Amino acid sequence: MNFIESLTAAWANNNSLLCIGLDPDPARFPAHLQGKPGAILEFCTGIVDATADLACCFKPQIAYFAAHRAEDQLEALIAHIHARHPGVPVILDAKRGDIGSTAGQYAIEAFERFQADAITVNPYMGRDSIDPYLAYPGKGVILLCRTSNPGGSDLQFLDVGGEKLYERVARLVADQWNRDGQCALVVGATFPNEIARVRALVGDMPLLVPGIGAQGGDIEATVQAGRTRNGSGLMINSSRAILYAGVDAKSGNDAAKNNPNAYVEAARRVALETRDAINRCR
Amino acid sequence: MNFIESLTAAWANNNSLLCIGLDPDPARFPAHLQGKPGAILEFCTGIVDATADLACCFKPQIAYFAAHRAEDQLEALIAHIHARHPGVPVILDAKRGDIGSTAGQYAIEAFERFQADAITVNPYMGRDSIDPYLAYPGKGVILLCRTSNPGGSDLQFLDVGGEKLYERVARLVADQWNRDGQCALVVGATFPNEIARVRALVGDMPLLVPGIGAQGGDIEATVQAGRTRNGSGLMINSSRAILYAGVDAKSGNDAAKNNPNAYVEAARRVALETRDAINRCR
Repeated sequence: MNFIESLTAAWANNNSLLCIGLDPDPARFPAHLQGKPGAILEFCTGIVDATADLACCFKPQIAYFAAHRAEDQLEALIAHIHARHPGVPVILDAKRGDIGSTAGQYAIEAFERFQADAITVNPYMGRDSIDPYLAYPGKGVILLCRTSNPGGSDLQFLDVGGEKLYERVARLVADQWNRDGQCALVVGATFPNEIARVRALVGDMPLLVPGIGAQGGDIEATVQAGRTRNGSGLMINSSRAILYAGVDAKSGNDAAKNNPNAYVEAARRVALETRDAINRCR
Repeated sequence: MNFIESLTAAWANNNSLLCIGLDPDPARFPAHLQGKPGAILEFCTGIVDATADLACCFKPQIAYFAAHRAEDQLEALIAHIHARHPGVPVILDAKRGDIGSTAGQYAIEAFERFQADAITVNPYMGRDSIDPYLAYPGKGVILLCRTSNPGGSDLQFLDVGGEKLYERVARLVADQWNRDGQCALVVGATFPNEIARVRALVGDMPLLVPGIGAQGGDIEATVQAGRTRNGSGLMINSSRAILYAGVDAKSGNDAAKNNPNAYVEAARRVALETRDAINRCR
């Protein structure tokens, strides 16, 4: 199955539009993992195994591995997901963007080294900087469109001939760059009006929506604005709110403190709540 | 010294505006390095040691290392440059771009793990996606403005209120984002008119100019368009034309074929010719 087919199957099989972002921050790991070799992999596989039946995709963010010289653990994590949870596709969140010859190297990194099913990329350098990813049949290519951060407005909200730059990106991708149906777009949950605008421009193209949870985006507004006619079409990402649900809780619960599985149980609980909160709005 | 001071000193000390791009492609390595462990590091240190007195900076492109699981060799290469050639700053060409918390991880990757003096970044996500790099005092932050590839026009040439998007980026960086003097811009040699326009907008801000050599940009047009009043202000990048000057030559010269140093000697010859060709136009 290609990325879009795999995603579509996971939407149905797991009854979920929830993308679980894997942004491992060792400073926030539970005590039994602090300072332990391979802790990043162990932390993430714990999350993955506890939530795979609740997610439509996993999205490891490569910077959180690269900052800790943990590329080997990222390789092992993605291999683990493919082996244990083959129904859940993996998006490498890397936001790469470079000229064709270099983009070809980044595509090797993402699709051959890390075996990702899809990658996030930046549209600023234009179509020929995207082609090397599209050259991999069946892989997903997810372009930044309207990002969830405040500074996203600096360029993406500029007027370009009667539309905003993010709208132009959405149209370029939908009308010209997506010839083989591999593309998706990133639109932040913090801007539901823009989600609705992008949905109107791109038909049923999947949208990756970061920004709920720690960044403050509203689930109901996101789903209402972004769902397709059949009530799917979205990968609504939550990272920190799930990963650190148990670790950061100041409950004073000694049983939880002494239970190495407390963080995965808390992650599963929050993932379930989030999936169901999303589903109530579909 | 901070990045800009180090670059300015190298312009003067090496009488050079030449940036040497390190894009190692093992398929094009000389025979004695084919299949050898550590070949990427050995190939690049050979180039670096043969050309350091001719360059104003070195620019390793991280994708060429990441595609081959060679991050450790990239770390060793940059450490080698700092130890042996401390007068020549190192730009990590990574073109990163992400929200603040993730950008902070990329900044750790570039400045703490790899010990780069500067990094290339993508402006599409706006000011708050750049701040984590600017938070490192003295490090250089080099923003994509007008890239050298044909597809760069897809977005960068759009009209935004009477100017092109790349002009708006140049003005935003010069007028608002560059508060501590750490910024520079990428403008492709394939577009000399745009180099001149950017130079007019940003004063003496350094410009990183890829696109001469393999990509076809013209040296004289680049220098005339981009030099500052004192005849500097440019990092004119050449990668493949220097790295593979000796390897790809079909000279039939048996002496060269049997000389493991032939590729470094050819690289030095082309680097010297390129530096001098640039200097004749200053």
